Amino acid sequence: MQALWLENNQLQLRQVPIPEPLPGEALVRVLRAGICNTDLELIRGYYPYTGILGHEFVGIVEQGSEQLQGQRVVGEINATCRECRFCRSGQPTHCENRTVLGIVNRNGAFADYLSLPVKNLHRVPDTLPTDIATFTEPVAAALEIQQQVTVSAAERVLVVGDGKLGQLVAQTLALTGCDLLVVGRHQHKLANLSARGIKTGLADAIQERAFDLSVECTGNPAGFELARRALRPRGTLVLKSTYADQLTFDASSLVVDEITLIGSRCGSFAPALQLLASGQVDVEPLIHAHYPLAEGLAAIERAKTKGVLKVLLEMSGEV
Amino acid sequence: MQALWLENNQLQLRQVPIPEPLPGEALVRVLRAGICNTDLELIRGYYPYTGILGHEFVGIVEQGSEQLQGQRVVGEINATCRECRFCRSGQPTHCENRTVLGIVNRNGAFADYLSLPVKNLHRVPDTLPTDIATFTEPVAAALEIQQQVTVSAAERVLVVGDGKLGQLVAQTLALTGCDLLVVGRHQHKLANLSARGIKTGLADAIQERAFDLSVECTGNPAGFELARRALRPRGTLVLKSTYADQLTFDASSLVVDEITLIGSRCGSFAPALQLLASGQVDVEPLIHAHYPLAEGLAAIERAKTKGVLKVLLEMSGEV
Repeated sequence: MQALWLENNQLQLRQVPIPEPLPGEALVRVLRAGICNTDLELIRGYYPYTGILGHEFVGIVEQGSEQLQGQRVVGEINATCRECRFCRSGQPTHCENRTVLGIVNRNGAFADYLSLPVKNLHRVPDTLPTDIATFTEPVAAALEIQQQVTVSAAERVLVVGDGKLGQLVAQTLALTGCDLLVVGRHQHKLANLSARGIKTGLADAIQERAFDLSVECTGNPAGFELARRALRPRGTLVLKSTYADQLTFDASSLVVDEITLIGSRCGSFAPALQLLASGQVDVEPLIHAHYPLAEGLAAIERAKTKGVLKVLLEMSGEV
Repeated sequence: MQALWLENNQLQLRQVPIPEPLPGEALVRVLRAGICNTDLELIRGYYPYTGILGHEFVGIVEQGSEQLQGQRVVGEINATCRECRFCRSGQPTHCENRTVLGIVNRNGAFADYLSLPVKNLHRVPDTLPTDIATFTEPVAAALEIQQQVTVSAAERVLVVGDGKLGQLVAQTLALTGCDLLVVGRHQHKLANLSARGIKTGLADAIQERAFDLSVECTGNPAGFELARRALRPRGTLVLKSTYADQLTFDASSLVVDEITLIGSRCGSFAPALQLLASGQVDVEPLIHAHYPLAEGLAAIERAKTKGVLKVLLEMSGEV
C-alpha cells in the first residue's frame, strides 16, 4: 500500500506492506485523513518519530470486528495497555505503555490502511459526511479543555490563534455561553468565527489583565506571551498546542499573580462526534483543500502555507 | 529612626523620619524582623523597589488603634484599596491598587517603625514568643498552597528545597498526612525535618514521574526542572519562590503530560498564628542568627551565606 513515511525528518511517499492487526485490533481501510499542526511539528522534529504519519482519519473496518465490519469509523489515537496505573485509574490517554497513532511507535493514517484496537473505534453516524467526521479527533482535543477547567457563562475567555485548532477551541468554548474573544492575525480566518456570532479581534489590540481564562492555540512563544498578558491575577492559561521549541516565561510574575497554567491534550470522541453530527460545531469552512494520497507531499506543503486551514488526504481505495 | 534602605540595588543603613500613619493605619514599633529570600532577590533586582526593605515582623502598636494599643502584632503585607474588582471579590492579596510592605511602594519592616492599615494587624497570643511569631508571614505563604490545591492523605508529594521556605512548606504539608518527601542539598537542613518524622532525601535521587504534587521552593531553574521531572502525568507543580531570572521549560511535555503549574504567593495569617502557637509548626531550629538593626548589612550578608536559614533583626527600641 501507499504511505507517507517519516524518517530522520524526511517525509517520503513509499510502498509498505498492509498492516497485520494484532489480537484485539481491527484493520481499517482509510478513506480520508486530516493534516494537523502536530504532523508538521513532527516533520520539523519536535519529537523523534519514524513511521507512517497521520492521526486524524475516517476509515472502513475490513477485519477484526464483526460488529463494525464494513462500517465507517473514527479512532481514538492512544492504544493503551489496560494494565498500568493510569489505565486502571481511568486515565488511559496517559497510559505508560501507550503507542499513539502516527505519533509514538504506531504507524498512522496517511496510508491506505491502518490498524487500531477495536475498543478505540467509534462508528460514524450515517448522516455525518466523511470529510466532516475527519475532524472528530481535533474537536475531541478542543473539548478536553472543558474536562480540565470549568468554564462558566460569567467568564471572560480569550482564545489566542485563528488556525485550525483555535477555530475548534473557539467553537466548542462558545457553546458554554462564556464571554468569548478570539484573536488572530488573519481577517479571513477570523471571518469564519464572526459568521457564527463569535467576537473576534486582532492580536495586537487585546486588553491586558482582563481575562479569566486564556487558551493558547498558536504553538509559538508570541502567542503564549499574549495569552499570559491577557490574564487577570488568579487566571488560568491553557496550553493547547505542541511546541517545537522551549518556552521562556517570567516565573516571578506567575507567582505574584498566582496564575495557573494547564497543558491539555486528547479528549473524548463521543461528544465530539455528537457536536459534529448536530452541526453545533461547523468545520465545513475550515476545509481548504483535498489531495489524493499520491500527492501527499504536495498536500503537506500546502498545509504549511500561511493562511491555509485544514488539508485533507483522500485515499483511492486501490492498493 | 534607623532603617535599611534599598535604592538602585544598593542597601544602606540610613536615618529616616518615623512614618506618619495615614487614616486607618497604625504606627507599629518593630521588635523583630525576618530576612526572607524575597528580600535578597529584591536586592539582586528581580523587581525594582526603592524604600525600606522587610516584610516579616513582630511589633507593638503605638498609635492608630485603641483596641491594639500596646499589643504585640504581626501584619499582613498587602495594603489594599477595598474598592477594586479583586478586593470586592474577596481576593484582596490581588488588589489592583495594593502597596506591599517592603516590596511595592510601601516602606517595610527593617526599621524602628512601620505603618500598616489597622485591618492588616493580628494580635500575637501572649504565649507565643516574638522570635517565633516573626514567622507568621512565611507560614501563611506556605499554607496558601492548601488554599489552591487539595492535598489528600493518599497523595505523593515532593517538596524541592530545604531552605527557609521549603522547611515551612514541608511542615505545613506534613500536617495533611500526605505521603511527603523533601529533597535538598544540605544534610543539616534536612535533619531539621527528619527530626519531625518527615522523609527527606538528596535531590539527585528522586524517582521520576512518580509524584502527584511537587512544590518548587528553591527559586532556581534546576529546582524547577527537578520538580517537573518528578511529576506523574496530570500532576501539579506549585511555584512557591520568586525568581530573579526567566524560566525556560519544555512546553510540549507539559501539554503531552497535561501538567498543571500554579503560582502561589501570600496566605492567611490566622491559621498560621494558630499553627505556630500550638507548636504544630516548629520554627525554632530555623533561627540561625540574631543581629541588631544597626548591623543590618552584616545580617543580610549572613542571610546570603550558603546553608544559613533564618536571620532575625532585633530593634533596639531607641530611636
